[in-house]
Amino acid sequence: MTLRVYGDSISGNCLKVKWVAQHLGRPFDWTETSVLTAETRTPEFLALNPAGQVPLVVFGDGRPLAQSNAIMLHLAEGSELIPADAYDRARMYEWLFWEQYSHEPYIAVARFQVLYLGKPAETLEPKLVERGNAALARLETQAQQSPFLVGDRLTLADVALVAYTRVAHEGGFDLALYPAVKAWVGRVEAALGVV
Amino acid sequence: MTLRVYGDSISGNCLKVKWVAQHLGRPFDWTETSVLTAETRTPEFLALNPAGQVPLVVFGDGRPLAQSNAIMLHLAEGSELIPADAYDRARMYEWLFWEQYSHEPYIAVARFQVLYLGKPAETLEPKLVERGNAALARLETQAQQSPFLVGDRLTLADVALVAYTRVAHEGGFDLALYPAVKAWVGRVEAALGVV
Repeated sequence: MTLRVYGDSISGNCLKVKWVAQHLGRPFDWTETSVLTAETRTPEFLALNPAGQVPLVVFGDGRPLAQSNAIMLHLAEGSELIPADAYDRARMYEWLFWEQYSHEPYIAVARFQVLYLGKPAETLEPKLVERGNAALARLETQAQQSPFLVGDRLTLADVALVAYTRVAHEGGFDLALYPAVKAWVGRVEAALGVV
Repeated sequence: MTLRVYGDSISGNCLKVKWVAQHLGRPFDWTETSVLTAETRTPEFLALNPAGQVPLVVFGDGRPLAQSNAIMLHLAEGSELIPADAYDRARMYEWLFWEQYSHEPYIAVARFQVLYLGKPAETLEPKLVERGNAALARLETQAQQSPFLVGDRLTLADVALVAYTRVAHEGGFDLALYPAVKAWVGRVEAALGVV
C-alpha cells in the first residue's frame, strides 16, 4: 500500500505535499479532490479529516494526516529538507508557522477570490492587499540576505513559502516590486523541478 | 546568559512559551512587552523580529526566534512534550498548525476584541463566532476520544490549544457547551501547574 494524497491541484497547500514527495522520491497516488465542488465536505472525507481540508494523506496502514506543513515535516524527516542544526531547524519552523498565519491568509485568499470567485483584484478588501504586501516585503528582506530562507540550502521553509508566492500575481500582487523574491522563487522552482 | 523571553502576559501565545520553559525547568528572563502600547513596533524590537510580534525569544548568543509554536518545538526538543513515535509526532504538528490557522484567528481574536477593545460579544462578526465554535466542536470530538490531544500524555499540542481555549469565555464563547473540552482544559492546566 503506497501513500495516498488527497489534493486539489489548484491549491498551493496541496502542491507542497506533491513537490516534497517527488523531491524525496517517495511514491504516492494522487486523488484529485475539488475544493470548489465541496468534495472535502462529504461524510467519507470528513471521517478521514474532520477539518474538511485538503491536503490529506492516508498511509498504507490507513492512518490519516492533515495540514500541509505537518505532512511535509513528517515526510521529510531525516532528509536534507530539514536542517540538521537545531537553531536552523527552529528558524525553519518559524517560517512554517509564519506562512500559515501571516502569508497564506492574505496571498492565497486574494488569489482564490480573484481567480476562482471572479472578484476583480481592485475590489479586494484593502486589509487583504495590505497584509499580503507586508508578507511579500518581509520575504524580500530575507531574500536579499540569503539564497534560501534558512541559509544556503533548500528547506521546507522555501517549499511552504513558494507555493503561493509564485502565483501571487494571480491575486493581483505585483512581484516586480519584489525583485529578490522573484529571483528566490526561480531558485526554489529550479531546486524542486517545478515549471 | 540565560534565555530572554519578550512576551505580553495577556497573550496566550506568549504564555505557551512561559509554561513550556517552566515545565522543562529551563531558566529565563521575562521582558514584559505590551502589544496594546505597540512595544512590538519599536525599531529596536523590529530589528529582533521583523514580524513585529511577541512572543520572541533571544538566546544567550543573541540569536532570536519568533512564533510561539516554533519556540515551543525548539525548547522542548528531546523532551516528553514531543512524542517519540513518528506518527504521533506528526499528529502533534497537525494540531499545532491547525491551532494557528483554524483556532487562534477566531478564539483569540474574539477575546481580544471583547476584552481589550471593549466590543460587546454580541456585536462580534458572525463569521468569527461561527468559526470559533467550529474549532471548539472539533476539540470536543477529540477530547471525547483521548485524555490529551495526541493520546494519553501531555504534548505541545495540548499546550498550544489550551492557551486560548481556557479563556475562550472572555471572547463570549460558552465552554459549558463543550464539557469534554472543559475537562481536558482542567487536565492540561493541572499537568502544567497553571492556575
